[in-house]
Amino acid sequence: MLHYPEQFDGIGIVDQADWTNPKRVVYKPRPFGAQDIDIKIECCGVCGSDIHTAAGNWGDLPKPVVVGHEIIGTVVRKGAGCTSDDIKVGDRVGVGAQCFSCLKCHRCQNNNESYCAKCVTTYGQFFDDGYCSKGGYASHIRVQEHFVIPIPENIPSEYAGPLLCGGNTVFSPLLRNNVGPGKKVGILGIGGIGHMGLIFAKALGAEVYAISRSSAKKEDAFKLGADHFIATKEEPDWAEKYYDTLDLVVVCAGSLKDVDFEHLPHIMQVGGRIVSISVPEQSEQIVLKPFGLLGVSIENSHLGSIEEIKQLLKLVSEKNLRIWIEKYPINEANIHTIFERMLKGDVRYRFVLTDYEKEFN
Amino acid sequence: MLHYPEQFDGIGIVDQADWTNPKRVVYKPRPFGAQDIDIKIECCGVCGSDIHTAAGNWGDLPKPVVVGHEIIGTVVRKGAGCTSDDIKVGDRVGVGAQCFSCLKCHRCQNNNESYCAKCVTTYGQFFDDGYCSKGGYASHIRVQEHFVIPIPENIPSEYAGPLLCGGNTVFSPLLRNNVGPGKKVGILGIGGIGHMGLIFAKALGAEVYAISRSSAKKEDAFKLGADHFIATKEEPDWAEKYYDTLDLVVVCAGSLKDVDFEHLPHIMQVGGRIVSISVPEQSEQIVLKPFGLLGVSIENSHLGSIEEIKQLLKLVSEKNLRIWIEKYPINEANIHTIFERMLKGDVRYRFVLTDYEKEFN
Repeated sequence: MLHYPEQFDGIGIVDQADWTNPKRVVYKPRPFGAQDIDIKIECCGVCGSDIHTAAGNWGDLPKPVVVGHEIIGTVVRKGAGCTSDDIKVGDRVGVGAQCFSCLKCHRCQNNNESYCAKCVTTYGQFFDDGYCSKGGYASHIRVQEHFVIPIPENIPSEYAGPLLCGGNTVFSPLLRNNVGPGKKVGILGIGGIGHMGLIFAKALGAEVYAISRSSAKKEDAFKLGADHFIATKEEPDWAEKYYDTLDLVVVCAGSLKDVDFEHLPHIMQVGGRIVSISVPEQSEQIVLKPFGLLGVSIENSHLGSIEEIKQLLKLVSEKNLRIWIEKYPINEANIHTIFERMLKGDVRYRFVLTDYEKEFN
Repeated sequence: MLHYPEQFDGIGIVDQADWTNPKRVVYKPRPFGAQDIDIKIECCGVCGSDIHTAAGNWGDLPKPVVVGHEIIGTVVRKGAGCTSDDIKVGDRVGVGAQCFSCLKCHRCQNNNESYCAKCVTTYGQFFDDGYCSKGGYASHIRVQEHFVIPIPENIPSEYAGPLLCGGNTVFSPLLRNNVGPGKKVGILGIGGIGHMGLIFAKALGAEVYAISRSSAKKEDAFKLGADHFIATKEEPDWAEKYYDTLDLVVVCAGSLKDVDFEHLPHIMQVGGRIVSISVPEQSEQIVLKPFGLLGVSIENSHLGSIEEIKQLLKLVSEKNLRIWIEKYPINEANIHTIFERMLKGDVRYRFVLTDYEKEFN
């Protein structure tokens, strides 16, 4: 058994008013359970949810708030009640945006554990004992075994991390809507998650439409896998031009305020589905005219399932796919820089925090 | 060839301010085309859309406004360009809420003619030549052949009429969501269309949940085919009690104002679908909290297809199903009475205008 500490080191928000300047903190993890696994973290992707949570957009949380849920690391401790043979001490594994569920309910038993009423997200949510979960901007994390996922050997850690939350969040609606050859799929919002959506939709064999407000990311979109590019602010007739075209649109925009739900249904085929994975500020609302949704559905999708993460890793491994990342060694200053850059939308397309050994050893 | 007139007699709205008192009118149909069929009308169901159109809720129309789109009658004239062998002069046929489409586009060619950009509804919509379509509160109707449907012998005319619009509108989402044994289906709003939804969902083999505000229609709902009854205003904990239950809800309420879209998704299974067939006043909006739709979709469905009407008639014929109707001989006074009663919600569950021969001969 590798070394595991009684306390974890992290970089977290300690003062809500100064949330863009997280500080080094030390904290106790929740008590180690028989089905728990401790992971020494090696790197962690930076998700839009990190910003929302750190900023307090989704509610006030006890400090320190330690975010990060695109985690790659090494198993250093395995509870006596763990049942999986796939995960051994010393293995490289990943953790996404969920760290706990009941594992017994109808949803958990049907690959919908992220929709379990007892779901605890990897950070910022409370366990039954009152402990607020803490994430991957830290030396270690403690996770229920079910949520620990082996990483295929040929995916470098920093390219694997973002697959576990952002990647799977866009992959899940692609899978659940049978995306493959013959399907026409739109990815709306070409940011951290949207850029992965383009890669995966293409890899699954679909005809891919990148949908963005401007054409600033057009060249990137084609490199990422798009077959078509729609710039909604630059093509006034986009809704007519692409009338009756798409089977599925996955809305990956960080906010729904700028999504044109009045015109979007026009480019969908009858029976087409608009699936939003956006988790905007709590106050946001979608206002729909009933007449505007003729034969088209709209939906908000939550995290994908663990099974879907495994399928995604298999796809990425087999097709040797590479997402586009920018790396920063983890430390207070760099997290501040990343937060500031993300607030400005200055990221192409996913930040990954690295060099954990150097910061926390 | 039977007698067909150059002018049709009808009962229509001639004064918008006095719309609840339609008057006897005579009008010219649009020019007879090679693919047209003239039908001498025998009876016609009364749909909520008749009220909306007559009241001007969906816009102002040239007078007279002649509504009615649950039409049964006899073919009296068949255009030289008609291609179907199923329909002969003298046959009993039906017409639903659509009388024209291009028949050539992707949608028309894939059993989605009601979603065709050239769709003309049976009344209150304009053909390319400017003629405003006129419906079934009249001696005759002229319809494009594709929209004329043979009626199985064992369905009495007055029970067949309401299947053609209201019936098929609720049947279409049942079919498109593969309702059958093992599926749990909610019908929300137990009115003219909802009562048919209960009958059809049961006939297809589903476990059926009637959802209404009060329990006033509980006994009826069970007779119609419901296995469960949810009275949302009388069971404060309904959303918890039926958590994670339904695969599909078809919203048949005439207005969406009272539909609780905040709680409804809670009773849906992950991947469950809320399909509204409601066509409320144009000003109505649905306001959704993105967080409230986790894994559940919402959709507005239009008219079903002609193919679906044929499947519905087959089901009703084979299982000898009977909807619940109340008959009124057609005349000015009775239409006034029906309109007044519908405005009060005093209908269980579908009015049908009969005795056309007496009024128009």
